[in-house]
Amino acid sequence: MTGIEVDHLARASLSRLFEPSDAVGLALVSVTGPVDALRIIRREVDAGSQVRRSLREALDVPDGPRDPLKDGLSRWAPRLRDLAPERDLATLKRLGGRLVTPESEEWPEALDDLQSARPLCLWVRGGARIPELARTAALVGSRDSTAYGAAVTTDLATGLATRGYTVVSGGAYGIDAQAHRAALASAGDGDRPPTIALLACGVDRYYPAGNEDLLRTVAARGLLISEVPPGSSPTRWRFLQRNRLIAALSVVTVVIEARWRSGALNTAHHAAGLGRSVGAVPGSVYSANSAGCHRLLRDGSAVCVADAADVVELAGPLGGDASGDRARASAAPGREQDGLALPDLLLLDGLPVRASTTVDKLSTVAGLSTRDVISGLARLELAGLAVRADGGWRRQKD
Amino acid sequence: MTGIEVDHLARASLSRLFEPSDAVGLALVSVTGPVDALRIIRREVDAGSQVRRSLREALDVPDGPRDPLKDGLSRWAPRLRDLAPERDLATLKRLGGRLVTPESEEWPEALDDLQSARPLCLWVRGGARIPELARTAALVGSRDSTAYGAAVTTDLATGLATRGYTVVSGGAYGIDAQAHRAALASAGDGDRPPTIALLACGVDRYYPAGNEDLLRTVAARGLLISEVPPGSSPTRWRFLQRNRLIAALSVVTVVIEARWRSGALNTAHHAAGLGRSVGAVPGSVYSANSAGCHRLLRDGSAVCVADAADVVELAGPLGGDASGDRARASAAPGREQDGLALPDLLLLDGLPVRASTTVDKLSTVAGLSTRDVISGLARLELAGLAVRADGGWRRQKD
Repeated sequence: MTGIEVDHLARASLSRLFEPSDAVGLALVSVTGPVDALRIIRREVDAGSQVRRSLREALDVPDGPRDPLKDGLSRWAPRLRDLAPERDLATLKRLGGRLVTPESEEWPEALDDLQSARPLCLWVRGGARIPELARTAALVGSRDSTAYGAAVTTDLATGLATRGYTVVSGGAYGIDAQAHRAALASAGDGDRPPTIALLACGVDRYYPAGNEDLLRTVAARGLLISEVPPGSSPTRWRFLQRNRLIAALSVVTVVIEARWRSGALNTAHHAAGLGRSVGAVPGSVYSANSAGCHRLLRDGSAVCVADAADVVELAGPLGGDASGDRARASAAPGREQDGLALPDLLLLDGLPVRASTTVDKLSTVAGLSTRDVISGLARLELAGLAVRADGGWRRQKD
Repeated sequence: MTGIEVDHLARASLSRLFEPSDAVGLALVSVTGPVDALRIIRREVDAGSQVRRSLREALDVPDGPRDPLKDGLSRWAPRLRDLAPERDLATLKRLGGRLVTPESEEWPEALDDLQSARPLCLWVRGGARIPELARTAALVGSRDSTAYGAAVTTDLATGLATRGYTVVSGGAYGIDAQAHRAALASAGDGDRPPTIALLACGVDRYYPAGNEDLLRTVAARGLLISEVPPGSSPTRWRFLQRNRLIAALSVVTVVIEARWRSGALNTAHHAAGLGRSVGAVPGSVYSANSAGCHRLLRDGSAVCVADAADVVELAGPLGGDASGDRARASAAPGREQDGLALPDLLLLDGLPVRASTTVDKLSTVAGLSTRDVISGLARLELAGLAVRADGGWRRQKD
């Protein structure tokens, strides 16, 4: 085996032993590397005082009776007997997948932003490469979405997919499923996957069961990604930790619908904590499914987004069509009156629409000197806002 | 006449001569006082070099050929011949109104925040006193409001009125009218007016005509206020300037519905410029009537508000029921699981709901040492989340 293959095998094993974000386990790997970490856990070698000291430092645990490594070893021991990394990797390969680790050329640097909570590895299913961060946008939200949420999700996912973004979500019912579906319906461009589903279970499982067809399609045309090995079931903890991966792998995370307490808010907070942009879609104040979005907007955790152009603007500079979107967003329908100075506005206010009026009358009505009225009328005439009529002046009709 | 009566008469006259926010006119009054300003405008006395110099300084106009006072005098002259302040004040008195000036005991200090754009005076109609700033909230929005906008306006105005706030608005169709109506429907408490309409025309006029009955009711039970004298017609300029009075007289301004370009946004920007709180109500991204609100939320000009408690929180400290609202807003429905540490969450995930399981199995499923499983089960049992059953453990049903 090559060095990378050895590392892969070790990380595949460790991802079976550790729950996501196991602080002691990840710190041990950062101190010793994955191969030695696994040998220590298997009790093939002793950790030694230097490793234990480094581990305490990494975990910021003071010297004392509590030994974090000892706690970890007893936590991981029950799973050692079932370890079969070659079988897991074979399962993955049979499904057309691959293991991506920090040692891989394809490793997304974006995950390094998770620092001590960086996953051990990614179990990836699908032919496409993981896209660069700048080209990814997460659309997340309630499982029990409304028709409104579904419509917004379709519009945002379609708009993002046609602008060259990969739509990232969590494979759940409701908003997630709609986001994957709409992105799949908009053809991707070549190597770029239209959509990525980050799973809380192994990539060989289809959870929830009602999304099996959808998740199969995502695997075929996009990517299924998980940090837990094949066969793993989705648990509350794994869902919560999966959310940090959605946030880390997406340059912007948009919450489309969320109740006051919702997993989507957890994803949004992960994104904000990583310095990623966060958007929230507004909705009716009477919709419980928008209460979480409004909560994010209210506490300043998210920016209000109403369409794909807003999301692209939030995603930041990219070149290409993004700049065009920004120009479009700032260009609003204008009106000729808007540029007028105060005296000309007063004059325009004083001009009747039907009958004509005189300079003297305008002077009184508008509160302007005769000179200002005359020069002002000339400017309004040039702007197409005033016309001479019956020896006087009236307003030009729209 | 007393000194105040002389000042009142002068300000009544000047408010006929000047359009709202006439920078030169207001600066002249600030330099000379209202009585001398009127005498200068009537050419009864010459301004003198000291006044002209102070005026240039106040207006930040450098020495040079352009004389701001000369421009002003020629602008105001055409209206001098129609001046009849006693008649205007008599009209106001007949309508049960009074002139409120900076010299009046009732003058709202909040208007001083407008600095050089502080109005000359307020033409006030109605028996109640102008409430203190902390007890006022402006609800503004589109004239062509939707059923959604009307429902939100009713809920906010009712909620604010019952919490002791006076609802301020602009007397227009749509959101404004609904805000006044709902506030009137909630009985005010004694001296406090339930609602105030700030008008762009004189307080003797009912504009728009379709709101005549409503505005008469506001005059009878609340307040009609304008800075332009009786008989004045509403012009575009006066509408725009009226918006700054709504903003200045309200501790918080809430935009309920607004198109991408809307006068309500102008009011919101005035409020933000004065350091007042600004709220915007979210709505469907497909509603053109919410686009202006989303624009305010997106550019950070407004805070997202969904109910009266949100508005009260935005209005700031007040004592009384406001603090209760704030406590209510931060207290969200909790769940017992939320306080659990990671190992106990893992354990809870591993506990079956129907059949019971053993400590050994839990140890493997949850990835915890036997010791941690036993101590965790004890904690979950105490929290009412786990129960002993059939010699093992299962989850407590909700």
